[in-house]
Amino acid sequence: MQFVSVEQLDLFIRRCFMAVGLPEHDAKTVAMLMTEADANGSDGHGVFRLPQYIERIQSDGINLQSNIHIAEDKGAMALVDGDNAVGHLVMHYATELAMNRAAEHGVSWVGVRHSNHAGPAALYAKMPLKKDMIGIYVAVGSANHLPPWGGTEMLLSTNPIAVAIPANEEPPIVLDMATTVAAYGKVKTAAQRGESIPEGWMIDKLGNPLTDPSRANEGFLLPIGGPKGYGLSLIFGLLAGTLNGAAFGKNVIDFNADSKSFTNTGQFIIALSIESFGDVNLFKRNVDEVIRSMQASSKLPGFDEIRVPGERSLKIRRQREQSGIPIPDALYDALSRLAKSLKTESLRVL
Amino acid sequence: MQFVSVEQLDLFIRRCFMAVGLPEHDAKTVAMLMTEADANGSDGHGVFRLPQYIERIQSDGINLQSNIHIAEDKGAMALVDGDNAVGHLVMHYATELAMNRAAEHGVSWVGVRHSNHAGPAALYAKMPLKKDMIGIYVAVGSANHLPPWGGTEMLLSTNPIAVAIPANEEPPIVLDMATTVAAYGKVKTAAQRGESIPEGWMIDKLGNPLTDPSRANEGFLLPIGGPKGYGLSLIFGLLAGTLNGAAFGKNVIDFNADSKSFTNTGQFIIALSIESFGDVNLFKRNVDEVIRSMQASSKLPGFDEIRVPGERSLKIRRQREQSGIPIPDALYDALSRLAKSLKTESLRVL
Repeated sequence: MQFVSVEQLDLFIRRCFMAVGLPEHDAKTVAMLMTEADANGSDGHGVFRLPQYIERIQSDGINLQSNIHIAEDKGAMALVDGDNAVGHLVMHYATELAMNRAAEHGVSWVGVRHSNHAGPAALYAKMPLKKDMIGIYVAVGSANHLPPWGGTEMLLSTNPIAVAIPANEEPPIVLDMATTVAAYGKVKTAAQRGESIPEGWMIDKLGNPLTDPSRANEGFLLPIGGPKGYGLSLIFGLLAGTLNGAAFGKNVIDFNADSKSFTNTGQFIIALSIESFGDVNLFKRNVDEVIRSMQASSKLPGFDEIRVPGERSLKIRRQREQSGIPIPDALYDALSRLAKSLKTESLRVL
Repeated sequence: MQFVSVEQLDLFIRRCFMAVGLPEHDAKTVAMLMTEADANGSDGHGVFRLPQYIERIQSDGINLQSNIHIAEDKGAMALVDGDNAVGHLVMHYATELAMNRAAEHGVSWVGVRHSNHAGPAALYAKMPLKKDMIGIYVAVGSANHLPPWGGTEMLLSTNPIAVAIPANEEPPIVLDMATTVAAYGKVKTAAQRGESIPEGWMIDKLGNPLTDPSRANEGFLLPIGGPKGYGLSLIFGLLAGTLNGAAFGKNVIDFNADSKSFTNTGQFIIALSIESFGDVNLFKRNVDEVIRSMQASSKLPGFDEIRVPGERSLKIRRQREQSGIPIPDALYDALSRLAKSLKTESLRVL
């Protein structure tokens, strides 16, 4: 295991993207977001994905000179065409747009098509927090990993949702969850670390538990709550994919297996202006109260704390800002090979 | 078991509400929505709740001469004050408003406070379908039935979500789900029918499975996906409750135990105009394709069909329109006592 500082990781990611021709301004935005993912503990969605993104760029699977633009516009609602740019750039643009529109209309829903994998969902849900807005983000996952309930054909992805709600003295509540029991990124991370995965995450094509993540392609993820998680994944796919004219279902390109084909990834972001509903500080104090009432409530035998969503991630962030971001050896080697192939300086460790 | 026609059930509910003083126009709206709940198979949320609603009205827990009005307004976003009216009236008003606003702004988010229990979530998510809009509805449940993950204090409700998406030749997709493995209404229905409930729906205060629904008040419901369902319930409560200035968490009044106190129930509805995103018919045909690809996909051993959300409910509706709505004996007796006490004609059976 190596440890790297937030700053060095940011610079490294930036160098790699610039080495393959992404304009400096764009490379900075992507590196900032990817580094935030790692700093917050989204280990399957940060620098872990860098070699894959770079390969996709080198295979002309991503457009470096993109023209991200508004395709449909009704004021509070807009549809952004990502022009096959790096997903982070598309979603950064869409979320800024949603925040501007919500300031005027109280709420904004911005859908996105022709986008790409954009990292962990929480990144975009959290952006509106700085304007005292609530963010809600939903994405079509970049590979299908589960069948409809009762089926064996992988027609659905983990289609995650993230919601961020600000508090006053307490940290914001940040929910970031796949509609499956586990995100596929976690399976990939476990495989890279040589760890096994718990029963209940995946089953094989006969319905038996699958616990060896290196066999992940022989099975599929399980949705939360059985048919309910399937329903959520389906609905999120229709809203973030089909409605935007983006891929969903059998049209989804598995970006783990194919680095050339346009993925036409779909996402949407909702920004909600708290001010429109009433006094912002009163709301935030009420959120404080809700958080504290949960944390202070009595516990089941076997539990020593009650958390609210976002607590674990924040704890990791504080730890990593101090002691650095852990990079497993296999990932570090992959990043070193990447740096060498791009003729750029390798990732500096602590 | 008795069977009643949709028309007779509608007339009976209307009579009961008018007998306690609800204006005829309002009684018609409530009866229409409650009957639709029963026709669609939401047995825990239709006429089953009538005696409770009437008791609440008779205890001055609901305002019959209400002034439902817009409290905050930003065009695409509005906050409706329900003035403690019957919940169905508040949500009917809010959903009509959301549809009008979405026609202009592409999307609309209407929050609601000072509302009441409004029946099954699908009722309101489905209303926008007739205008080729997508509906998304979330409510704070009217009694707390689950603790935060790892806790034993019931600070959360089943806080359901419903989403309705139109198709072209296929019926619309209608997801209506509690964030718990089972809705509390299903537990109440099972208790009234003298049936037991499956393991996994509820646990008692020591964490042991609870399968006797008559002991429901000794335990609590389990969220879907463990901490994920808890997270969803918490987020939905903050968005439908706290943000609207409505009750959430420890402020929720248990309307099963208390028929007098104002509940200040919170809900929200989003209407999304499909036309704003592009060609409506193309979208609907694409939804058809998604539905058919799910239904036609290969099945796990032990499954003989793959369904999409809304299928079961539609099948029940067709059956009940033909053969009538089944009313269990205990419920029929309760409704007969109600009619007698209100000096109105009893429910006519088939």
